Amino acid sequence: MALKKALAIDVGGTKIYNTIVNEKGEIISEVEKHHTPDTFNEIKAVFKKIISKYENQVDVIAFATCGAVNNSNDGILGSTGNIAKEYPSMDFKSLSKKPVFVENDANAAAWAEHIIGSSKGMPYSIMLTLGTGVGGGIILDNKLYKGKNGAAGEMHFKLRNDKHRKCTCGSYDCFEAYASGTGLKKTAEEISGDTDITTYDVVGSKDRPLMKKILEQWQNDILEGVIGLANIFDPDVIVLSGSMAEFVDIEYLEKQANKEIVTTPFKVVKASAGNYSGMIGAALLALGVK
Amino acid sequence: MALKKALAIDVGGTKIYNTIVNEKGEIISEVEKHHTPDTFNEIKAVFKKIISKYENQVDVIAFATCGAVNNSNDGILGSTGNIAKEYPSMDFKSLSKKPVFVENDANAAAWAEHIIGSSKGMPYSIMLTLGTGVGGGIILDNKLYKGKNGAAGEMHFKLRNDKHRKCTCGSYDCFEAYASGTGLKKTAEEISGDTDITTYDVVGSKDRPLMKKILEQWQNDILEGVIGLANIFDPDVIVLSGSMAEFVDIEYLEKQANKEIVTTPFKVVKASAGNYSGMIGAALLALGVK
Repeated sequence: MALKKALAIDVGGTKIYNTIVNEKGEIISEVEKHHTPDTFNEIKAVFKKIISKYENQVDVIAFATCGAVNNSNDGILGSTGNIAKEYPSMDFKSLSKKPVFVENDANAAAWAEHIIGSSKGMPYSIMLTLGTGVGGGIILDNKLYKGKNGAAGEMHFKLRNDKHRKCTCGSYDCFEAYASGTGLKKTAEEISGDTDITTYDVVGSKDRPLMKKILEQWQNDILEGVIGLANIFDPDVIVLSGSMAEFVDIEYLEKQANKEIVTTPFKVVKASAGNYSGMIGAALLALGVK
Repeated sequence: MALKKALAIDVGGTKIYNTIVNEKGEIISEVEKHHTPDTFNEIKAVFKKIISKYENQVDVIAFATCGAVNNSNDGILGSTGNIAKEYPSMDFKSLSKKPVFVENDANAAAWAEHIIGSSKGMPYSIMLTLGTGVGGGIILDNKLYKGKNGAAGEMHFKLRNDKHRKCTCGSYDCFEAYASGTGLKKTAEEISGDTDITTYDVVGSKDRPLMKKILEQWQNDILEGVIGLANIFDPDVIVLSGSMAEFVDIEYLEKQANKEIVTTPFKVVKASAGNYSGMIGAALLALGVK
């Protein structure tokens, strides 16, 4: 019997990707890339074009999108940051004759890790995507955890209580404001006193004492968050993904966190499902692969 | 048909309570109180005495105990603080001919609120018990959340990243170290510079500017934790219980937290199931009341 297939579409603030993924989580066509247009109508036109080209080849359409997605997996809750402000009103179901399934990109990526990646076989996992911001995906008892309306898994818990650093969410001192790439730059500015310092300056000269100190502070902030999540969830594993994850000393993090938690031993691992894990995870969810 | 009944036993570091609870969550006999003895054998003897007196009147024995309880609800995971260090090795099932069920006291209390208290009818709730320490109970999709081994719900996530205040868990700056009664005393010491200041000095003179400032700082730390939990879980409600909860301005907390979260609106309420909610919740869980 032929494997079922999904047309997977990843929607970010700057890029839209699409490809076809089968129920084994394999990417079976070229990955296409588009710039995310500025307006709602232009974004919708990109979706329409992708879908009309591929919908006859697949069983379902699977979106991995920025923004929190509702529990019926057909729409977005509230605002989503750096994309057209009307985007959350998108009527995804109307875009195709085939079934359309929508999930948050970080949640989808966590599901890809759970099914084919580094948290495979582990019922309780939390994924932290360390990029420009921080994304989160929570899997409990082999199910994606979404909360009462679908917005759960936002890594906006506080690492300080003195309103020190503004977060993109409008509040202060969230984990995201420290553990992200943007957070690393801010930490570098604070420690070096140089407001022109870049993330690249830090990771490109890791052996210089100043840069080492900056990276250690940033990594310690990630450690603090990992400890808190392990104490709240008693998970099997915390998975680190995203472009910034490669600068984290995973072995140190796992060892130190396990020394400090009051719950039971857990693993810290790097994601292994690849750069397109959002599309893969959305496809697997849309195809009902558990 | 007669209602089913549980002999409920609450085990804390200083006191052991027992009573009989029916499947409606009603306490139907006198609550008896015992000092928690120092040694394992003396504690076991207290359990035996209570159980031999009442086991013929009930269907099950339900323990609400300090310490994390395993997922088979028959034993304790690891150490539990201020109780005989061998206590976690207690073989609860051997104590009675009737079925024996064990749950963590904070988890049990959260379940009582869920079934008969202030989170009734709300599928996603988190309870914070603010006492000498801080207990936590998490209910997701109408089920008690325990994590991979049963240790979940520990409110040891960090509120600072600079190793400022030692926590009872051995690590630094956990929510518990700020939001608890002990935390309030520490905050009072830091703000007043007076190491002899007591929690009572603060809550007994709330209108004095210094005490007001201390309480505001303490409450703000609770707010920071509540925001983090709401962003992680997207819950219906966060329930505050315990002796310190009466000093929190619940309305302010709910209003301010809802302004700062990135998830969807949620309630903050006070617990209403009473002082014996641990025994009630353990009984309801043991009797299978959902």
